Amino acid sequence: MQIGLIGLGKMGGNMRDRIRAAGHEVVGYDTDQKISDAKDLKDLVSKLSAPRVVWVMVPAGKVTDSVINDLSDLLEAGDLIVDGGNSKFTDDERHAQELDRKGIAFVDCGVSGGVWGKEAGYGLMCGGSDKDVERVMPIFDALRPEGPRDEGWVHAGDVGAGHYVKMVHNGIEYGMMQAYAEGYELLAAKEIVKDVPAAFKAWTRGTVVRSWLQELMATALAKDPGFDKISGFVNDSGEGRWTVQEAVEYGVPMPVISASLFARFVSRQDDSPAMQAVAAMRNEFGGHPVTLKGQKGIVTDH
Amino acid sequence: MQIGLIGLGKMGGNMRDRIRAAGHEVVGYDTDQKISDAKDLKDLVSKLSAPRVVWVMVPAGKVTDSVINDLSDLLEAGDLIVDGGNSKFTDDERHAQELDRKGIAFVDCGVSGGVWGKEAGYGLMCGGSDKDVERVMPIFDALRPEGPRDEGWVHAGDVGAGHYVKMVHNGIEYGMMQAYAEGYELLAAKEIVKDVPAAFKAWTRGTVVRSWLQELMATALAKDPGFDKISGFVNDSGEGRWTVQEAVEYGVPMPVISASLFARFVSRQDDSPAMQAVAAMRNEFGGHPVTLKGQKGIVTDH
Amino acid sequence: MQIGLIGLGKMGGNMRDRIRAAGHEVVGYDTDQKISDAKDLKDLVSKLSAPRVVWVMVPAGKVTDSVINDLSDLLEAGDLIVDGGNSKFTDDERHAQELDRKGIAFVDCGVSGGVWGKEAGYGLMCGGSDKDVERVMPIFDALRPEGPRDEGWVHAGDVGAGHYVKMVHNGIEYGMMQAYAEGYELLAAKEIVKDVPAAFKAWTRGTVVRSWLQELMATALAKDPGFDKISGFVNDSGEGRWTVQEAVEYGVPMPVISASLFARFVSRQDDSPAMQAVAAMRNEFGGHPVTLKGQKGIVTDH
Amino acid sequence: MQIGLIGLGKMGGNMRDRIRAAGHEVVGYDTDQKISDAKDLKDLVSKLSAPRVVWVMVPAGKVTDSVINDLSDLLEAGDLIVDGGNSKFTDDERHAQELDRKGIAFVDCGVSGGVWGKEAGYGLMCGGSDKDVERVMPIFDALRPEGPRDEGWVHAGDVGAGHYVKMVHNGIEYGMMQAYAEGYELLAAKEIVKDVPAAFKAWTRGTVVRSWLQELMATALAKDPGFDKISGFVNDSGEGRWTVQEAVEYGVPMPVISASLFARFVSRQDDSPAMQAVAAMRNEFGGHPVTLKGQKGIVTDH
Repeated sequence: MQIGLIGLGKMGGNMRDRIRAAGHEVVGYDTDQKISDAKDLKDLVSKLSAPRVVWVMVPAGKVTDSVINDLSDLLEAGDLIVDGGNSKFTDDERHAQELDRKGIAFVDCGVSGGVWGKEAGYGLMCGGSDKDVERVMPIFDALRPEGPRDEGWVHAGDVGAGHYVKMVHNGIEYGMMQAYAEGYELLAAKEIVKDVPAAFKAWTRGTVVRSWLQELMATALAKDPGFDKISGFVNDSGEGRWTVQEAVEYGVPMPVISASLFARFVSRQDDSPAMQAVAAMRNEFGGHPVTLKGQKGIVTDH
Repeated sequence: MQIGLIGLGKMGGNMRDRIRAAGHEVVGYDTDQKISDAKDLKDLVSKLSAPRVVWVMVPAGKVTDSVINDLSDLLEAGDLIVDGGNSKFTDDERHAQELDRKGIAFVDCGVSGGVWGKEAGYGLMCGGSDKDVERVMPIFDALRPEGPRDEGWVHAGDVGAGHYVKMVHNGIEYGMMQAYAEGYELLAAKEIVKDVPAAFKAWTRGTVVRSWLQELMATALAKDPGFDKISGFVNDSGEGRWTVQEAVEYGVPMPVISASLFARFVSRQDDSPAMQAVAAMRNEFGGHPVTLKGQKGIVTDH
Repeated sequence: MQIGLIGLGKMGGNMRDRIRAAGHEVVGYDTDQKISDAKDLKDLVSKLSAPRVVWVMVPAGKVTDSVINDLSDLLEAGDLIVDGGNSKFTDDERHAQELDRKGIAFVDCGVSGGVWGKEAGYGLMCGGSDKDVERVMPIFDALRPEGPRDEGWVHAGDVGAGHYVKMVHNGIEYGMMQAYAEGYELLAAKEIVKDVPAAFKAWTRGTVVRSWLQELMATALAKDPGFDKISGFVNDSGEGRWTVQEAVEYGVPMPVISASLFARFVSRQDDSPAMQAVAAMRNEFGGHPVTLKGQKGIVTDH
Repeated sequence: MQIGLIGLGKMGGNMRDRIRAAGHEVVGYDTDQKISDAKDLKDLVSKLSAPRVVWVMVPAGKVTDSVINDLSDLLEAGDLIVDGGNSKFTDDERHAQELDRKGIAFVDCGVSGGVWGKEAGYGLMCGGSDKDVERVMPIFDALRPEGPRDEGWVHAGDVGAGHYVKMVHNGIEYGMMQAYAEGYELLAAKEIVKDVPAAFKAWTRGTVVRSWLQELMATALAKDPGFDKISGFVNDSGEGRWTVQEAVEYGVPMPVISASLFARFVSRQDDSPAMQAVAAMRNEFGGHPVTLKGQKGIVTDH
């Protein structure tokens, strides 16, 4: 089938390749004209035959809002937009309502797999009506990994359900990574363990903790044992935050995923206001020495 | 080669089969005579030619202590004991010292893989001297999964290092399982997500969270969607506790693995003394209603 | 001065008494006519001389919304509403805007102190313009504890700031209570400590952990040592949730307050879906026994 | 009565003053001869009349071990040693057994109150036999705050129970401080709150969170609003670690106190090995940019 694809970055660019490799026609658009197949959105729309399917693969939030808004003026009733970015599920509901007024259908699709997806395929989590999801199925089948469809793709529910499942997926991802990371730090601290990279690699087969992330961890350790080259500064892209906020909203205990998120927050702080407060209180009651700004700390006190 | 194997339960029994299938001779001993190849430990030792290798696969702690102690009286200088159970690494150091006085060598080996190991092979994490570990290598090769040796087996360091790596492996396992579990609970709470089992299954290919545990979770959900049949009562076998205690000892932050451990503690409490204390304090300051023993709780108060 | 007071429950009723005891005139309204000074809101408004000050002390959310909406139709330009309930700060911004269109001023005020406030005074945290806050000052002075004004009252900022500070106050309260509660549970578990209630009481003077909550804990333990009569079922009233959601929004690590909140969530669950998931995964990989619904658990497995 | 006091530092020196002010005779010893009343331990013992009471107030662990060992050679049967330092309760049991062989009695006493204790009195938590504790009572009464004895002193159980209660006291202290600190960080992050120091001060009277630590926090903020002068580097002195390890040993969930401890660990790390691991994994799967050592981080990525 024919599809328009907006956003040809790290994810979108690879997806264009994979969809084309499956025999479909892709008209891609990017603000970078060197890689774009269309001059602008209007040009992209004009190159597609109605009823059109356009996949939006741009940063969540304002950029996605703006692209979907622009598209809604260019597309016609009967066309369909897929939002494949990392949008919040509440954005999906809003987008679907706005588009519905113009007769444009909407499907949300969480996409997992990172830079490996081009070759290995992408894990896909969709939301929308049966009819709308079915319309995009040839593209889903092109993007998802080989194997049974239900092992790499799910129609999770109505509009928003796809991004919701992807959001939780990312929350789980935070927790898993933090679990490996804590284990790594302890292994690295314990003198008895001579070869931490080898331990991580040895978990690849037969163990309970084997996983793709564990393999990536082994790969990373093979390249840079001891992590001498990189800093422990870790961003978060929104989905972990939404997962925790949703858990709080629904009364779901979420100690592990929240702890993983908070560890990322801490990793980005030059100094911790909270720990300054603790240092200040200790100084007040115990005369415990405080470390002045710019000083190196002292580790023991009595 | 020839090996003695003590303990033919869920793990040991399968391991005997797998070692035999690889062409080695196994003399197994178990207190259950129906499955045992030897009448008693003395009989087992008599059936092995010196220098002997005996693999101990019994519950950690007192049982392992007792078996190793008994063996140390029956074996000779030049023999070797492998402890493949879930022993604490500090036990290994003690066992190695005691055996060394009699000239008996000692290797510790953490074994992962559960009931699936018989067919898929076991992930193995060893500690001991190069020479001693090398002596057991044919058995390690029989037990570990097919594929490159370093993807299912590691010689992690001196005596104790194998069980240490296995201990941390289990701590990570706790954290991973809790991450999936928290994600599950949120998905199950959110009405927008229509098919939670399908979501877990769809993560099998292409996603960042794909893993063996994720596949097992999908399998479990396929059998019992909604977990109507089982209770959220979860044991712990020691290794998670040791992992957290070691982290505290070494000043390693371990929020995720400790939270996973504490969640298991809570899961086994009929009532929480801590939460009784919170309820009592709230009642004192605010006249907030408390729930009497045996009553059903009220969920909102002002 | 003269003030209208809407809501004469556990908090509002005591506040009416305390304000009157300070020599001010209070016209109270409650849906319970037996304790109400006015037939209805219209009657209340008619009994106050313009420019009026009306303090709203009803449950946050829909009830507060409804009362403020009704009042906005009955009051005149130049009147002022104080919301003293546990409203979310975002509600304050909305209320202030709506009222401003009619020329009605708005002040938010978080009130702490529970049933003890009538005698001891209430801790007050206000938000609004200098002019509006100043107008209510005689009432604030009547309600707050004796002593310097700045030790029991704060003008924290513009509209919403009062409830924001109160929200964080409650989040801290959750964390403090959980800290005492965890300490209690450990003391109660350790056979070496013979008299846990005495230990809590002994912390009243001289120690670092002395506090009002600690005194209440000692009082509660004196009444019911061992907490044999009450259940560990703990509600939450919204502010803890908002505190954590705000922390997530602002990238503030909040491990302790979130853990306290999650402990309350768990305390209200008959069974934990997350722990059912963990039990199910363990059963899949290790053949670990699961506890069926209705069964008592088994504590050890191998 | 007469008492020997070993260790005249920040705590011991003040305690000598307070005991003397109550009319007792104190022979103090310190390695700093300028403040010492005795040349050495032998001299101290010779200046006391049998049966002697000697209070040891030196750093826990090796120093306390060494002083108690030296004293055990100098004292006679019938004498009594009080360990008032921050010793681990397991040390108490060992010390009591060693001293018992020589007929020397032993009492452990946790002392809280910091530099404020000289004037306000110290919170005391004792362990030992009724007879031994009774013998030291005049000194306990001198050290504890004015008011009812049971509000500043407890005989918690046999040897070790005093330090156990003090250990848990400190664990609770960690949790409380972290709760205030998290609340502080959120208030400081929220632009709507104009005067965070004033908010903390306003909690002094009437609120649920009022406490001595809250007053100290208000004092610290008054001196250095915004904590511009001090660094968020926080030590721990052992008791928090033991509290968490004991909780793990006894199966007591302790999310808040452990999180407080871990936050201190993190505060002392130049870089976090765990977060390096997370950054490395993210880079592997997503091509997420990593921050090289020495670089400033980038906060957003897509």
